[in-house]
Amino acid sequence: MVIFVLKHDKGSLAEAKFLSDARTILSKIPVVKEFRVLDQVNVKNDYHFGFSMVFANQMAYDTYNHNPDHLAFVEKRWKKEVARFLEIDFKVH
Amino acid sequence: MVIFVLKHDKGSLAEAKFLSDARTILSKIPVVKEFRVLDQVNVKNDYHFGFSMVFANQMAYDTYNHNPDHLAFVEKRWKKEVARFLEIDFKVH
Repeated sequence: MVIFVLKHDKGSLAEAKFLSDARTILSKIPVVKEFRVLDQVNVKNDYHFGFSMVFANQMAYDTYNHNPDHLAFVEKRWKKEVARFLEIDFKVH
Repeated sequence: MVIFVLKHDKGSLAEAKFLSDARTILSKIPVVKEFRVLDQVNVKNDYHFGFSMVFANQMAYDTYNHNPDHLAFVEKRWKKEVARFLEIDFKVH
């Protein structure tokens, strides 16, 4: 998962478009399971949104990280529209 | 969910006991669903562990926050054994 803040104004059309396009593009990548767009609502945490997804194993995660649609999204949208972010990767303990 | 770092040494018995006791105590609280103990493995993120859980609605979350077993765990264990943490609460967008 990743939590992030957008450069766009809260409630703006550009914000809605970023979230919607991310869902469309990333959830279509075959190794990505259970893709979710999340609102971060804890007031002691200053990130606004999250994306979460599940991978079957490390190979699936590596495939995602090299997927051309993912890489294009990072270059064309993420790097331009995201102000700051924190990646959080979990394995069940 | 919450991500955190323990004061205990990595791989120590005290670390294992904290994670195990947390699971036993918190997963038993009736409103807590899908309690998970997680290893945080992204190297760009300096938190080591996570707990995640799901609540049916805001009332269930509020019930958890006032549950005596939860409050006792926070006072007796969390405040003493956790070095730093970040709470992250999500609603599906």
